[in-house]
Amino acid sequence: MTERTDGATIRDVAEKAGVSKSLVSLVLRGDPHVSDERRRAVYRAMADLGYRPNHAARALSSSRSGIVGVLLNDLRNPWFAELLDGLTTTLHAAGLTPVLSESVTVRRAGGDAVQSLTGLGVDGLVVVGATPDAAALTEASALFPVVLAGARQPRLPGGDVAVDDDLTGARMATEHLIGLGHRRIAHLRGPGEEGALRLQGYRRAMLAAGLDPDRYAEAGGMSEDSGYASTRRLLTREDAPTAIFAFNDISAVGALSAAADAGINVPDGLSLVGYDDTYLARIRHISLSSVDNGNYAVGVQAGRLLIARLDDPSRDARVVEVATTLHVRGSTAPPRRAPLP
Amino acid sequence: MTERTDGATIRDVAEKAGVSKSLVSLVLRGDPHVSDERRRAVYRAMADLGYRPNHAARALSSSRSGIVGVLLNDLRNPWFAELLDGLTTTLHAAGLTPVLSESVTVRRAGGDAVQSLTGLGVDGLVVVGATPDAAALTEASALFPVVLAGARQPRLPGGDVAVDDDLTGARMATEHLIGLGHRRIAHLRGPGEEGALRLQGYRRAMLAAGLDPDRYAEAGGMSEDSGYASTRRLLTREDAPTAIFAFNDISAVGALSAAADAGINVPDGLSLVGYDDTYLARIRHISLSSVDNGNYAVGVQAGRLLIARLDDPSRDARVVEVATTLHVRGSTAPPRRAPLP
Repeated sequence: MTERTDGATIRDVAEKAGVSKSLVSLVLRGDPHVSDERRRAVYRAMADLGYRPNHAARALSSSRSGIVGVLLNDLRNPWFAELLDGLTTTLHAAGLTPVLSESVTVRRAGGDAVQSLTGLGVDGLVVVGATPDAAALTEASALFPVVLAGARQPRLPGGDVAVDDDLTGARMATEHLIGLGHRRIAHLRGPGEEGALRLQGYRRAMLAAGLDPDRYAEAGGMSEDSGYASTRRLLTREDAPTAIFAFNDISAVGALSAAADAGINVPDGLSLVGYDDTYLARIRHISLSSVDNGNYAVGVQAGRLLIARLDDPSRDARVVEVATTLHVRGSTAPPRRAPLP
Repeated sequence: MTERTDGATIRDVAEKAGVSKSLVSLVLRGDPHVSDERRRAVYRAMADLGYRPNHAARALSSSRSGIVGVLLNDLRNPWFAELLDGLTTTLHAAGLTPVLSESVTVRRAGGDAVQSLTGLGVDGLVVVGATPDAAALTEASALFPVVLAGARQPRLPGGDVAVDDDLTGARMATEHLIGLGHRRIAHLRGPGEEGALRLQGYRRAMLAAGLDPDRYAEAGGMSEDSGYASTRRLLTREDAPTAIFAFNDISAVGALSAAADAGINVPDGLSLVGYDDTYLARIRHISLSSVDNGNYAVGVQAGRLLIARLDDPSRDARVVEVATTLHVRGSTAPPRRAPLP
């Protein structure tokens, strides 16, 4: 799936960017002393010319640093902890050292996490979850292999992906609620391709059970606040749902609070399923049924994909999907019968 | 406060370690290609001789990498997010790039997070919170400045520390409960010097109010599980407490679950105060009164201490204490009157 123009050379890139060949080499090595302006000019020229450095040569050369950058999005959402465990274990077993950077914090400080990691001379990069750094990652993928873990965007030329099977996970969550006897099941939609796949899994399960998949599908799957607000809205409807399947655990926790504030007991008055099976779901006081996306295995697969790509840079890009399971906890139960008049 | 023997040279270290001078130089530069065995021999020799490399020379030389290592303990406890924000902002403003590593995950994978960061050629290291890497940090502090943020151990020669004022924070939490009318107030003790200081703050407030500070002080402040188990024990006592001040938010969340399982409503039947003011405390469904340890400011101070030390390696070691505040939420209320017979 890799687009490349084998003809372009460092000389072409230097000419197009209006810089010296040695400056291009510095950029390729991720030297931190190159100005942002000149670095970006080189990146642009590389992109325009379809230039990609020869990862194979790098893999064979002694210039390998043994360092793998790991880009996290937001440390406040704890879903990635297991993934990082699997990834670190796999990289370490191959003699590679992971170092982390976090997009949100670095960005707030006016920095660029991808550039920070590039500047370390990493051999490759693993992007964990959604990222605001799509453009920078596209640039970086010209310098070294970039593997996505737990997310499917941005699409990178030649980029490998390790994810969970979102469609099946969402279908399992919805079927669990249907199996308990629920008919009015809402879904709090999330963003991106994961959001689209989970919506699709929800829709398939609803349709297969003869239920309307559009009646209760609404946004609100991203944060505690959005989960709270959407659930408030849903619960004021005449035909309020008796169950909610949320895009992730954080939004499900928001739904939990909205139910409490509306005087509705979970699970008696409302069943809730989250996604990610984070430690939030396991906190006794929350005890949330949640889809376990096999994040440890996703991390292992991402590590393996990177190692394989370092060994053979010309192999085809792959998407590895890890199986999901459902952990049933205290937040789901059969729907309460309508109170007697 | 720095102990040093100015006489020892690289030559002395090499001789004592039984290696070449150039190998010592490689170790001092954090070269990752040195075997663990030889690296440790060099560290041991440096420690025995009291040898410390001249940070000042390094600060002035062009060998500065501009990279600062940040050592996190466990990404699963989210208390450090604000601290990291303040730290990253401060470092970035000074042209320094933070890169992260996490002890627990790396250790589980058989690695050594301190050594990983050292291998990057960092200019300095900020240790966030408690760490299992005390020995490695003592070694590393011979190579570059190490600043502790949000923790007071391990004591490092010449090491700066930025922390919150644990004693005052704990006193405020306890006084809040006393002010609400509670007399039977338990404390779930935590480990380390922070644990000792928070216990002391609790004791002082209890004594000042004429209350017995030993009656309800028990361990259980470290994890959700330990908070749960201790609270279960406390609540079965004849003289069960009406309020609990926990070492941290995680253990307070465990206490919350124990109360729910015992059929006791928070705050009507039991008031709870946590510590760290994490986002867990802010989750509506948990809504935990908690001591805000000013972690953003702690991060800023840690960054400033490191920057100042890079500029002037011979300055005296400092401990900066940041003021704490108390955020009162839904988990604290006056004690319920005894039910009528």
